[in-house]
Order: sequence, then structure tokens, then C-alpha cells
Amino acid sequence: MKPQIAKGTRDHLPADMALRESVTAAIKSVFERYGYEPLETPAIERIDVLTGKYGEEADKLIFRIIKRGEAGERGAVDLGLRYDLTLPLARVVATNRDLPLPFKRYQIQPCWRADKPQKDRFREFIQCDVDCVGSASMLADAEMVAITCDCLNAVGFERFRVMVNHRKILAGLEEYAGVPAELGPTAMQAIDKLEKVGLKGVRKELADRGVPKGAANKLLSVLEISGEPTQVLDDVEGLLENSDIGSEGVAESRELLKYLEISGVDKANYEFNLWMVRGLDYYTGPIYETYIDEPKVGSISGGGRYDGLVGLLAGQDVPATGTTIGLERIVAVLEITGRSVAAPTRVSVLVTVFDESTLGESLAVARDMRAAGITCDTFMKPDVKLGKQLAYAEARGIPFVVVVGPDEAAAGAVQLKDMAKREQKEVPKTKLAEVLLTEHGC
Amino acid sequence: MKPQIAKGTRDHLPADMALRESVTAAIKSVFERYGYEPLETPAIERIDVLTGKYGEEADKLIFRIIKRGEAGERGAVDLGLRYDLTLPLARVVATNRDLPLPFKRYQIQPCWRADKPQKDRFREFIQCDVDCVGSASMLADAEMVAITCDCLNAVGFERFRVMVNHRKILAGLEEYAGVPAELGPTAMQAIDKLEKVGLKGVRKELADRGVPKGAANKLLSVLEISGEPTQVLDDVEGLLENSDIGSEGVAESRELLKYLEISGVDKANYEFNLWMVRGLDYYTGPIYETYIDEPKVGSISGGGRYDGLVGLLAGQDVPATGTTIGLERIVAVLEITGRSVAAPTRVSVLVTVFDESTLGESLAVARDMRAAGITCDTFMKPDVKLGKQLAYAEARGIPFVVVVGPDEAAAGAVQLKDMAKREQKEVPKTKLAEVLLTEHGC
Repeated sequence: MKPQIAKGTRDHLPADMALRESVTAAIKSVFERYGYEPLETPAIERIDVLTGKYGEEADKLIFRIIKRGEAGERGAVDLGLRYDLTLPLARVVATNRDLPLPFKRYQIQPCWRADKPQKDRFREFIQCDVDCVGSASMLADAEMVAITCDCLNAVGFERFRVMVNHRKILAGLEEYAGVPAELGPTAMQAIDKLEKVGLKGVRKELADRGVPKGAANKLLSVLEISGEPTQVLDDVEGLLENSDIGSEGVAESRELLKYLEISGVDKANYEFNLWMVRGLDYYTGPIYETYIDEPKVGSISGGGRYDGLVGLLAGQDVPATGTTIGLERIVAVLEITGRSVAAPTRVSVLVTVFDESTLGESLAVARDMRAAGITCDTFMKPDVKLGKQLAYAEARGIPFVVVVGPDEAAAGAVQLKDMAKREQKEVPKTKLAEVLLTEHGC
Repeated sequence: MKPQIAKGTRDHLPADMALRESVTAAIKSVFERYGYEPLETPAIERIDVLTGKYGEEADKLIFRIIKRGEAGERGAVDLGLRYDLTLPLARVVATNRDLPLPFKRYQIQPCWRADKPQKDRFREFIQCDVDCVGSASMLADAEMVAITCDCLNAVGFERFRVMVNHRKILAGLEEYAGVPAELGPTAMQAIDKLEKVGLKGVRKELADRGVPKGAANKLLSVLEISGEPTQVLDDVEGLLENSDIGSEGVAESRELLKYLEISGVDKANYEFNLWMVRGLDYYTGPIYETYIDEPKVGSISGGGRYDGLVGLLAGQDVPATGTTIGLERIVAVLEITGRSVAAPTRVSVLVTVFDESTLGESLAVARDMRAAGITCDTFMKPDVKLGKQLAYAEARGIPFVVVVGPDEAAAGAVQLKDMAKREQKEVPKTKLAEVLLTEHGC
């Protein structure tokens, strides 16, 4: 048989893991500094919990698991792989009514989507979510934007834009333009394509989806509004004066902008974009999506307020907002831009093995290194030529090799080889850990 | 609807996560000190890769995922959730032929088994695997036992026993006893129950499974052999002198014991147990399984050599050995014995918010704390009574509250409340981070 990895998935070999772990640690550290705490939920959720919350398109992308036993043999499904981390969070809040609210949690775990695999789009990917459940205040939304900026700074990005919009403003604009209610969702999907297809393209999309020409024209003219965030709101406010929901959206957005300012979020890092929609059904308030200037890789993070989602599960609404930092996209960018400086291995030392008679010496040296906190491998076979052992260290990128031979063993010393500098020196066994730690930064 | 978590799975709320993360970090650190490097593989594998390697019983426990598209509607399956981390590793080695061997990797990820859920047995659980692929030396097996001992020490266990046995000795004993070849696997399953059902129980099991009485008697008499590991091997050696495979098993086991000794593994921590079998089909050499003395919770770790598994996938055998440290069992024991000392939260400080006018002050104080590396939450709503904000900190177990009121703001100071001691003092804003870091260990 020819073994194959599942389509659209990847292995992360040790050399990849170094970068992935350093990015994850940076994001986790920002989340924790803001007072968020870790949560983990199962990868599998009941299919009735998973479906019917994201929207039709997304529901199709849920991986479905066959029920155990006879029903399963007839193709019945009772479980699915989680599609995001937001719905599992809502389920946790719905099933743990005694959590102190606001429940501020972060969650760094994989999600699965049966998407058509393509470049930089995978069927399994890690999401880094941070959410505040139980606060209706725009302060919580502002915190999401502040956290996003801090996370991107922490991984070394400086030039990026958090796009902000508000679902209530979008609803108001549909009222204003006279989009028939039943066409609201599809009209939004058309608008969402503005950056990709331009105004002309959106006009065609709206027509294709059956949005009346008059309504489409009014929508399109709104999409041309741009400028400073407060200016955008000033411009849109007049259009929405007859829409209750639209006016509410403007007022909340003003509050959000005020909180962003007093939170000290850099104005260069956020915009207000009326055409930014986001795909999922469950958003009800401010929404955010982040892009870096270079290279072009799609959104780096995204999220928003979803005040109704917990209610769908719990029967009682709990206001909530949150965002996802896209680990995979960040790692991809760092790889493209070569900003990854992680070492190829975290193993500092390989201890060689001469033969059976000196094996005890080699193992003792390794034990001493480990006790000193130095990561240390030993060669796994006696009586292999030194050259082969050195080649193995070279192949793995291990920077130091400690040669323990019979002469050295007798003299209570070892040979310490610096693989990069191709230098070698004799070091007394009792000084080895100290030399590695202080002189070589192990 | 009543939202429910999937049967046999658990959420890990922040209070659980503290312990889980500290145990994981301790194990990871031991793996790295021995020169092992991290690998992650996808949760989903192709069903043809997953099945046919573990044995019939295990294959039944694989969660099966429905194929996308029309074939799926007819119940076709193309993917499954990984059952363990060993097979994915074998697939990685089979599909990455340029890995420097031995490939020494660790992998800490969840696995899924559609087992009947029961106390302390879950359908999703984290495994911590460490494996050495590409070395046939018993040195690699000895390292697995040494790593197991170091991991258990690192999480605070002192009294435990790694049981060691050898599949080739078991095969030899079947030859010696005259167990018909086709009954070999089922005879092993009977023997594996010795600790649970006793010698009498095993006798019945063997009879039920059709093992001839003469063969069963010979097997049972061997199971009574016990004592020091070398003594057990001495006793069994004579019985196996006519079995090539059995003699090979004895010779390799002697080598393994010698390496354990020169590796400095404490003799109190390992035994040689002829009746320890392990369930999976793929083992070919030494096998190990670890139990703690108290409380009784099943095996804490287990593994063995599987020289044929990579070959099943790659067409060419690559010798390999490894072990799994059972995170879930360790965490369960630490919870039972109350040895968990992790704090209920890693959030050190809550900054209160008085009203809209002082909100900027509160956010600035929080920003300063975070810049100093202090984990710091801010209350998510202005104009909430101080008592409610303190109650929230109390409920989350946050140890310090910084009260920022209008008087304090004017004076450039804050009130620092120690929630445990119920003490409060005024601190200049500029000194706050220093006081928290140096006087309160934040």
C-alpha cells in the first residue's frame, strides 16, 4: 500500500514546530496578560449542537462522524468535528450556568472544515480564540481589537489594519436601500466580495442574486463611503435616521471607537469599513477582520459580537464577543517573509557512544547534562563509527557534540565539538554543563 | 433544545487547565531533555491507513468520518479519527523518507476511541508519546523506561513499577506450552487478565477460548515465575532453549536489563512480568506498562517495540520503539490525591472601573500592568457598584484588585486590595507594578 496523509491536512515536523510553538506562546501570553484564561473543549460535538448555527454554506463543511452500532451501518450520523471554537464556547456557557460572568476565556485548538483544499487553506487548522461572554459593553469589543493589535505586534507585525463594521449598521443599510428582507443574507454575501471583485463586480453579484436595481444602486453608493472611522459614521448616520436598528448600530459603533481611543489603540491600525460583512450567521453587533499590508494572504484574524448564539443553546441570551487570531496565516506569513528565526532543533547536545565498554560513561554524561537542564540526545547504538554519529548530529542540526571515548573516559574528560565552528576542545567532565551553559548559551 | 456535550468527552475549564498544563509541561520538558523533538500530525487519517494495524477489537473503536459528496450520502467512509499516535508516526516516517534516523520525536495530542464511556475512560484523551524510530538497539528501549521514570518523578510520583516483558518471549512460551498457532492471540488476551482475575480465572479463560488443557497447564505454571528481573529470565531461559524466537527474546531482554542498570534507572521502579501482554497487534519486542502503587487506576503509561509497523506502510521495515505517558490518568491521580497545588486562576489582578469619566484611567493602569508582564483583567462595564466588581474577582479567585476611583485618579494613586488578606493600601500609580511584582510575587 502507498500510505498517504489525509487530503488538506499537514504534518508538522520538528523544524515547523519551533515556529508554530513560538507564535502560539506569544499569542497565549497576550491573552493571559489581558486576564483571559484557558479552556479546552472536545474536538467532537453532537451533530444537533453543531448544525443550524453557522449558516447553510458552513453547515455543509462540517465533517460528520458515523454513529456507533447498527444505526451507523445504515449511515446515521450523531457527531461532527467542531467547525470553530465559538459554538463550543457557547455550549460550555449553556451547560455550565455557574461560571462567573463575564467568562473571559481563550482557546487554542484545531478546527476542521471539509473545504476544497487549496494553497494556504487546510481542512485542519489551529485557531486562537479569545472571547468575553456575559458583557454587552462595547468595552469588551474594544478589548478584542486591542488584543488583536497586541497579538500581531507580539509576533512581529507592524503594518496591519483591523477593519471594523457593525451588523446592525448593515441591517440598517438594507432597510435604507430597500433590499427585500429575504434577500438580506445573499445581498450581504455580494457586498462582502467588494475587495475581490470591485464595485462593478458587486453590482453584477447583486443583480445575479435578484436584488432589485434601485436597492442595489443605493447599497452601492453607500459602499463608496470611506475615510476616518468617525467620518464614515457621520456620513452613514444621516442615511440611517429612519432605521432603528441602523441608528443603534451607529451609536454602538461610536461608543466602540471612543473606547478604542481611550484604550490607546494606534489609529493607524483600524478602519471602519461598511462593506466588511463576515460570513457567519451568528454575528449581531460589531464585527472585525484584520489584514496585513504585505504579503496579501487573506484575513489574519476575525470575529465579532454574537449576542444570540448562547441563547440558541441555553434558551436565554447571554451577550458575547470574541475574535480568532489565525495561527496558520501568521505562520505562513512569517515563513514567506523569512522572519522566522527559530533554530532547526531545540536539542543542544548529542553525546556519542564509543562501544559497549564506555556506554555507561556516555549515559552518565547525558544524565548530568539533563540534570543541568540541557537538552541532550545520546547516540542509540554502540560500535558505530564516530563519523556516522557526527553526520547524524549534522543532519538534525544539533549544535554541539560531546565525544566520550576510552581515553577521555580514563582522563575524566570529554571532547566538546562545536559543529558550526568546527572546533573541538577537551573539557573536564565536571565542568561540561557549566561550559555549555555559560560559554555556549545552551 | 437542551445542549449536551458529546458522550464520553469533557470540557476542561480554566481551573482544570492549570493542572493539565503543568503536567504537560513537566512531561514535555523530560522528553526534550532526552533530545526528543515535537511532532504534530492531523487528527484525521485516511481510513485505509488507520485500519488493519491494531487488531480487530481496536479497529471497531475507530471513529469513522463520512466521505464528502454523494458517496457519503450512501454512508461511505474515507477518514477516521486517529486511535493512537504510533500509527500516525509510522505514516510520517513512511512518507518522509529523508528524515535523519533515528527519528526521535515526541507528540502530545488527543486520540479518540469509541469505547463504552466509563469512569476515567474517555472517548477523547490526550496522549504523550515519545518514540525512537530507526534504532534496533535495546538502548532505545532502555531509554523509554528511563524517560518513563523521569516523567513520573517530574509529576511527583515516587512509588511506581514499570512492568517489562518481551513479545518474543511470549511467542516462545506459546511454542513451549504447545498452544496451537491460531490460538496464540486469544491465549495472550487470557494471560493479560492475570492481575484482574487471578490464576484460576486465567485457567477458565484459556479453556473458554479453546486452548488445550495440557498447553494451558504449561502456560499457567510459567506465569507463576516471579522475582528479580534477572532471576525471571534465568528461570524462563531453560524452558525456551528449543525456541529460537524465545531465546532471542531472552537475550534481548538481558541486554535491556543491562542497559537499564548502566542508565542508572532505580531498580525499585521496574520488574519483569511474564504475564504482561499489552493489547495491540503491532508490538514485536520489549513491551512496557507502568502502574503506581496507590491509588489503583490502571496503567499510567505503556508502550513497546514495533519493528514491523513502519514496514506495513512503507514496504520496508524500520525498527522502532516508544511509549505513551497517560496524561489523563496522571491528572486523575493528582486530583484524587490532592497533590494539585495549581492556583485556580493565572490572572493576578482585576482593575475596577468606576464610571465613564475614569475609564481611561482604569485602562491605562491595566496597560501598564500588562506591559510589566502582569496578567490583568479590567471590569467590562462602567457604572457597576464596586461591591459587584469585587464579588466578580472573588468568584474567579483573582488575588488582587486595583480600585481606580475619581479621588485616586486625581491623586495619581490607586487602592490595592489583597483579596485573601482582606487588606487595602494606597499605592502611587507609578509604583504599582513594582509593588505587585516584588511584594506580592505577581
